[in-house]
Amino acid sequence: MIIVGENISVTSKIVGDSIRNRDAGPIIKMAKAQKEAGAHYVDVNIGPATKNGEDLMQWVVKTIQGAVDVPLALDTKNTGAIEAGLKVHRGTAMINSVTGDKDKLDILIPMAKKYNAKIVGIALSEKGVPPDVDSRIEVIMNIINSAMEYDLPLTDLYLDPIVLPVAVLQQQVYNCIEGLKAFKQLKDIMGLPDEPKTIVGLSNVSQSSPPELKSLLNRTYLLILLSHGLDSAILDPLDTELMNAVKTYDILTNRILYAHSYLDK
Amino acid sequence: MIIVGENISVTSKIVGDSIRNRDAGPIIKMAKAQKEAGAHYVDVNIGPATKNGEDLMQWVVKTIQGAVDVPLALDTKNTGAIEAGLKVHRGTAMINSVTGDKDKLDILIPMAKKYNAKIVGIALSEKGVPPDVDSRIEVIMNIINSAMEYDLPLTDLYLDPIVLPVAVLQQQVYNCIEGLKAFKQLKDIMGLPDEPKTIVGLSNVSQSSPPELKSLLNRTYLLILLSHGLDSAILDPLDTELMNAVKTYDILTNRILYAHSYLDK
Repeated sequence: MIIVGENISVTSKIVGDSIRNRDAGPIIKMAKAQKEAGAHYVDVNIGPATKNGEDLMQWVVKTIQGAVDVPLALDTKNTGAIEAGLKVHRGTAMINSVTGDKDKLDILIPMAKKYNAKIVGIALSEKGVPPDVDSRIEVIMNIINSAMEYDLPLTDLYLDPIVLPVAVLQQQVYNCIEGLKAFKQLKDIMGLPDEPKTIVGLSNVSQSSPPELKSLLNRTYLLILLSHGLDSAILDPLDTELMNAVKTYDILTNRILYAHSYLDK
Repeated sequence: MIIVGENISVTSKIVGDSIRNRDAGPIIKMAKAQKEAGAHYVDVNIGPATKNGEDLMQWVVKTIQGAVDVPLALDTKNTGAIEAGLKVHRGTAMINSVTGDKDKLDILIPMAKKYNAKIVGIALSEKGVPPDVDSRIEVIMNIINSAMEYDLPLTDLYLDPIVLPVAVLQQQVYNCIEGLKAFKQLKDIMGLPDEPKTIVGLSNVSQSSPPELKSLLNRTYLLILLSHGLDSAILDPLDTELMNAVKTYDILTNRILYAHSYLDK
């Protein structure tokens, strides 16, 4: 599974302060810790970034990649800031996350193609969160069609069935599992040349749940989704129990070799 | 999921002593604890029981059911002892576990039918553990055919793809998952009137693994198998983390209603 570390987000006070004050230390430390814990990508969520978004994203990308050799997932609604980030990014970046809004697709998919970046296509439309599984599929088919239109390799497209909080929208948590299963069949149904990948933003499932339930909800949900073929997740790689669940999944499905010491680094 | 508590087994010294000395206290206590922890059945494994098996099984059945209102899974190679147990059992018993050996099937399946018992059919033949998925399916198809021959309702048949220790036979742990997935398709493939259920003996997966890994291996494997449609498991209901994983699975798949307090009794 491809792990995208979620921890560098303006929703955290430390990160917010660090970005506002151009204080490199805390975000370098967080990027390093996530990579060491097993993250293959580090997500960089700078918020809406309506003012100076370009400068801000370039500073974050250069700051992290100047200190840690890790590719980044660029996360903001400001498409100019995304492009500014891609210009200075080394290696293969990820653009996170692109809704089914046609205007946005027409900007971001050619951008991904131009900068050789991967892209997260999320089952969200202008109308908001799709109420059921079929409307998730409809949005995602539009995103796939856009990718084909702009000749983006489908293996660079990560489809996100959108995880919602079980404490608020329990039925939607089940719909997301069903959405994932449906997305895994789109290659056959749509006659695609390649299979798009799948991804989720895991921690959303435990939002609004009590702190003592969060890790249990996250890791249980991840195991269900992995069992249904999930390829990638945006998650907290510093959650040891979560990462141990992933390792144990890999052992039990024969992806890595069992040893009594498999939980040790 | 139907939970069969595994703890009353002669492989445990307390249970062995209790049964040998006809000391009712410890096994009543264990049956009660398992039922309170959520077991729907309590397994009673009295070993080979070649001497006085009938008396022994009747004593155990009457002892437990005299004190705890719970159905039992009768577990011994001694078919006479199974029948003796069924004679005094109240409610719907389970016979655990029946291999693909034709001689045994011809005794135990009519017996299940006669006493209205459920039966666990396990993917084990006279030749031992099937080396791959296809040979698991072959054994199980024989068991299904026997059930049909004796007119046992297929919904009373629990198919077991046989769990083996990941520390010793890692590939077989993966084969068991694939076996389960295949068993879930047999209704369609064989054109069966009803769908047989599925079951595993969960703790086998962590046999020979260090104690600190056992619960993690057990609960992770259970979540994988549940995701692939497992109906029932023989497990340790006193393992709180395991039972919490089951409850969380039920929440995330919308089987029970979410509440912040869902882990509390």
